[in-house]
Amino acid sequence: MVATVEQLAALVRGRVVGDGSVAIRSARPVTEAGPGDITFVESERYAKQLRTSPASAAIVGPHFKTITPSPVETDLPMIEVDDPMSAFLKVRTHLTESVRPRWVGVHHRAYVSPDAQLGEGVAVYPLAYVGDGAILGENCTIHPGAVVGEGCRLGQGVILHPNVVLYPGVVLGDRVEVHAGTVLGGDGFKYQFVEGKHVKVPHTGNVEVGADVEIGSNCAIDRATFETTKIGEGTKIDNLVMIGHNNQIGRHNILCGQVGMAGSCKTGDYVIMAGQAGIKDHTEIGDKVIVGAQAGVHRHVPSGQNVLGSPAIPVREQRRIFQMIARLPEMHKNLRELSAQVAVLMASPPPLGADDEDPTGY
Amino acid sequence: MVATVEQLAALVRGRVVGDGSVAIRSARPVTEAGPGDITFVESERYAKQLRTSPASAAIVGPHFKTITPSPVETDLPMIEVDDPMSAFLKVRTHLTESVRPRWVGVHHRAYVSPDAQLGEGVAVYPLAYVGDGAILGENCTIHPGAVVGEGCRLGQGVILHPNVVLYPGVVLGDRVEVHAGTVLGGDGFKYQFVEGKHVKVPHTGNVEVGADVEIGSNCAIDRATFETTKIGEGTKIDNLVMIGHNNQIGRHNILCGQVGMAGSCKTGDYVIMAGQAGIKDHTEIGDKVIVGAQAGVHRHVPSGQNVLGSPAIPVREQRRIFQMIARLPEMHKNLRELSAQVAVLMASPPPLGADDEDPTGY
Amino acid sequence: MVATVEQLAALVRGRVVGDGSVAIRSARPVTEAGPGDITFVESERYAKQLRTSPASAAIVGPHFKTITPSPVETDLPMIEVDDPMSAFLKVRTHLTESVRPRWVGVHHRAYVSPDAQLGEGVAVYPLAYVGDGAILGENCTIHPGAVVGEGCRLGQGVILHPNVVLYPGVVLGDRVEVHAGTVLGGDGFKYQFVEGKHVKVPHTGNVEVGADVEIGSNCAIDRATFETTKIGEGTKIDNLVMIGHNNQIGRHNILCGQVGMAGSCKTGDYVIMAGQAGIKDHTEIGDKVIVGAQAGVHRHVPSGQNVLGSPAIPVREQRRIFQMIARLPEMHKNLRELSAQVAVLMASPPPLGADDEDPTGY
Repeated sequence: MVATVEQLAALVRGRVVGDGSVAIRSARPVTEAGPGDITFVESERYAKQLRTSPASAAIVGPHFKTITPSPVETDLPMIEVDDPMSAFLKVRTHLTESVRPRWVGVHHRAYVSPDAQLGEGVAVYPLAYVGDGAILGENCTIHPGAVVGEGCRLGQGVILHPNVVLYPGVVLGDRVEVHAGTVLGGDGFKYQFVEGKHVKVPHTGNVEVGADVEIGSNCAIDRATFETTKIGEGTKIDNLVMIGHNNQIGRHNILCGQVGMAGSCKTGDYVIMAGQAGIKDHTEIGDKVIVGAQAGVHRHVPSGQNVLGSPAIPVREQRRIFQMIARLPEMHKNLRELSAQVAVLMASPPPLGADDEDPTGY
Repeated sequence: MVATVEQLAALVRGRVVGDGSVAIRSARPVTEAGPGDITFVESERYAKQLRTSPASAAIVGPHFKTITPSPVETDLPMIEVDDPMSAFLKVRTHLTESVRPRWVGVHHRAYVSPDAQLGEGVAVYPLAYVGDGAILGENCTIHPGAVVGEGCRLGQGVILHPNVVLYPGVVLGDRVEVHAGTVLGGDGFKYQFVEGKHVKVPHTGNVEVGADVEIGSNCAIDRATFETTKIGEGTKIDNLVMIGHNNQIGRHNILCGQVGMAGSCKTGDYVIMAGQAGIKDHTEIGDKVIVGAQAGVHRHVPSGQNVLGSPAIPVREQRRIFQMIARLPEMHKNLRELSAQVAVLMASPPPLGADDEDPTGY
Repeated sequence: MVATVEQLAALVRGRVVGDGSVAIRSARPVTEAGPGDITFVESERYAKQLRTSPASAAIVGPHFKTITPSPVETDLPMIEVDDPMSAFLKVRTHLTESVRPRWVGVHHRAYVSPDAQLGEGVAVYPLAYVGDGAILGENCTIHPGAVVGEGCRLGQGVILHPNVVLYPGVVLGDRVEVHAGTVLGGDGFKYQFVEGKHVKVPHTGNVEVGADVEIGSNCAIDRATFETTKIGEGTKIDNLVMIGHNNQIGRHNILCGQVGMAGSCKTGDYVIMAGQAGIKDHTEIGDKVIVGAQAGVHRHVPSGQNVLGSPAIPVREQRRIFQMIARLPEMHKNLRELSAQVAVLMASPPPLGADDEDPTGY
C-alpha cells in the first residue's frame, strides 16, 4: 500500500514539516530504510544515521532539533509527534496490514467438534483441533497444530499460535495471545506419598487468563487442584516460563524468560520478575515488587520492595552483600595480618603495671 | 451422577455419621461447595469454613471433633475416614467419571501407520500420528497432535497428552503419563571438535521410561548415545525439566520444575530435586538425597545427604554459610574497627622489657 | 545390511589387522555387542570389556596395544584408525542407514500451500504444515506436526523434527537441524508502558539461522523488533534454551541446556555457555568466552575470558571467592577470637611511656 506523508501524519496525529505529498510504501528502521521508506528517530544514534540514509521521510520527536548538536541539514519531509516509536509502529502496521486481509473460516483440514461454538470472523487453520463444547469468541485465530480442549472458553480476538495446547476447561479473556508450543492447564505437580509410592492428586480445577494477557513460547501453566489458577489482565509472560498450580498472578505483571513459580503463590499488580527468577510455593508478593534476575524468593515480599539474590533479600542489602563478597579475599588477608599482629601483641610481656609489680624489678 | 452418602462411604470404606440417605451430585472443596455437594475437611481452616458452608455432606478425619475448639454444631451427614483428602478425590473422580465413558478408537483424522500394532481399547485422537512399527498396549490414549515415532513401544494405559513427541524407539512402561509438548528421545548434546567445527555425534540409543512415571509439560529427555537413557518406575517429573543423554534416573524420584540434568548422571531411589536445580554431567546422586531449589550440584552426593547452594554443599553447612554471608557487612565493620584498634596498639611504644633495656633509661 | 571387516575398513580408511573377511551385521558399543557385531575401543575401560565380549570385530586406535598392560590375546579382527569413535559412528550409520532408503514426497495428510516451493527430494510427513510462499531447498525433511510459516526460506537438507514451529519469515541455512517442539520467530518481549498498561511493541523483524546449526528440543528463539535475530553458522544449541529478540549469536557457539539470553546481546565465535547460564540484555560477549553453569552475566565479557557465578566475574577470581565463602565460618570464628583478644589488649593499662610519664610514677 502507498500513502502520502500527509496521510500518515493524519493517522498518527502528527505535524508535517516539509513536503507532505511524498509517497511512502513501507516503514523501516533507519539502518534498513531506502527510497520510498519512512523511518523514525528517537535517539542521537538514529539521528546521526539519518544524515546518510536514503529514506524518503522520518518520524521525529518534538525535540528532534536538539538531539543532534548539528541539526540535520535536509529538506527530508518529517512528521513530528510526541512518541516517534509508537507512531512508527502504527504506520508500519498500517502499511503492512493493508496488503492482505486476514483469512477467515474453518479450514477443511482442521478438526472442529460439531459441538463447538464459533463466533463471527473466527479462523481455524489446517491441522488445528477444537474439542467438544469449546466456545470461541468473535475473530479468534487458531493456528496450525493448536489444540483447544473440551469445554474451553475463549473471548474475542484471541490468538493461539501454532501448537499451543489448552487442556479442557481453560478460559481465556478477550485479546489474549498465546505463542507457539505453550501449554495451559496441565495437571499440577502434587502427590501423596503412600506406601513407598507417589500417588497422583487429581487436578480438577482449571486456568483462567484475563484480558490482554500475552504469553510467550513453550511456557507451562498448570491447572489448579480444585479451583482456578489465575493470570490477571494485562500481564505479559515471556518464553519458557513455568507457573505452578493454584497460582494467583495479579494484573499487569511482567514475567521474563524462564521464570519459575512453584504452586499456590500470589502476586500483586505491576510486579516485575526478571529472567530465571524462581519463587517458592505459597509465597506472596505485593504490588509493584521487582524480583531480580536469577533471584530465589522464599519469603513473602511486601509491596514496593525490590529483591535480589538467592536466597533473595532487599536489593539494597543484596548489593551491599555482593560488594562484601567481592572484598572477601581482601578481608581474608586483612584478617590474617591482624591475627599475626595480635599474636605479636599477645606474646609480648604484659605491659608495665599489669601485674602491679615494680617495673624496675627486672 | 447422583449417589447417597451411604454409597459414597462404601466406596471409600468410611463410617457414616448422621443421615446416610442424603443425595450427593458433586464433590467440591469447602470454598466452592453448595447444596447437593460433598466436601472434605483436613485442617482447622477448612473446619471453620465448613460451619458456614451450604454443603450437604463432608468427609472428615477420625479426629475431626478435636480439630476445632468448639465442634461443629450441625447434623451435617459425615463420612469418617483415615485420609479425608484421598477419599474426597476418589469420590470426586467417581462422581465425575461416570458422566461420560472414555472415547475409544482411531479417529479417521489421525494418522496411524498400517504397520503399527494397537491393543484393545486404544484411543487415537484426530491429528495424532503413530509411526511404522509402533506398538501400543491396551487402553493407551494418544491425544491430538501427539507423535509416536517409528518403533516406539508403549505399555498399557499410557496417556500422551496433545503434541507430545516420542522420537523413534522410545519405550514407555504401563500407565506412563506424558503431558503436553514434552519431547522424549531427541538427540543428545555431544559434538567432536574437528578442524574448527563441532561435528555431531550420532545418538543411536533410546529412552526407556518405567511404569507409573508422570512427566510434565514441555520437558526434554534425550536419547542415549549408544544405549539407553532410563527413568525409573514411579518417578514424577514436573514441567520444563531437561534430562540429558545417558542419564539413569532411579525409582520414585521427584524432579521439580525447570530442573536440568546434564549428560550421564545417575540418581538413586526416592531422590527429590527442587525447582531450577542443575546437575553437572557424570554426577552420581545416592538414594533419598534432597537437592535444594536452584542448587548447582557438581560432585557426587552420597545417599541420604541434602545439598543446597551453587556450588551445592550439605544443607546444614550451606545454611551456616548463608548466615555468615548475611552478616558480612557486620563482619566487615568489625574488621575495620579491629584494624584501627590494632593499629593503635601497634603504634604504641614497645612495652617495657621488650627491648631488654633499662626502662628507666628514657 | 552386511559388510565384511575389509569393506568397513575401506569405508573409514583404516588398516585391517587379522581376518578381513569376517561378516559384520551391526555396530554396537562393547557393553552391548554380540556375535556378528563390530565394536570400538577408545579407553582402557573399553579394552578390558573387550576381552570378555562376544563381538566379532573391533575398531581400535593406533596405540591400542599400549592401552592395556596385558594386551588382548585374541585373533579378533581389528580395524586400526586414528579416531576409533568417529570411525565407529561412520560404520554404525552405514550399517543402519542402508536398511531403508529415506522416504521422500509430500504425504497427502500433510498440508502444503499450493503457493510453496519445494526442492527435489523433500519429505513432508503427515500432519506437517507448510505455509504460503515458503521455499524449501533440496532434501529437506519436515516431520509430523512441524509448522513452516508463511514466507520461510529453508536451505538444503534442513531437518525439522516433529512439532517444530517456524513463524513467518524465518530463514534457515543448509543442513540446519531443529529438534522437536522448538519455536523460532515468536514475537520478542518488549512493551511500552502507557497509561498503566503494557502496550505491545510489534515485532516485524525475523530470525536467520546459519548453515550447520543444530537446535535442541523445546527452545524458543524470538524474532527481532525490526531487523534480524541471528544464529551464526555451526552453532549448537541444547534443549530448553531461550534466545531473546535482536540477539546476534556468533559462529560455532555451544549453548547448553536451559541457557537464557535476554534481548539484543551479541556473542563472538566459539563461545561456550554451560547449563542454566543467564545473560542480561544488551550484553556483549567476545570470542572464545566460556560462561560457567548457572552464571549470571550482566557486563560485557572480553574475548578469551572465562566467567562464573551470579553476578559473573572472571573464573579465577570467582573460585577464590568460592573458597573464601567456604571459609566464612572459620573467618567469623577468628574474627570473634581476635575481637576478644584485642578487647583484652585495649583494656590493659597503657604501656609504659605511652603518656611520657615516669614509669616509676605508679
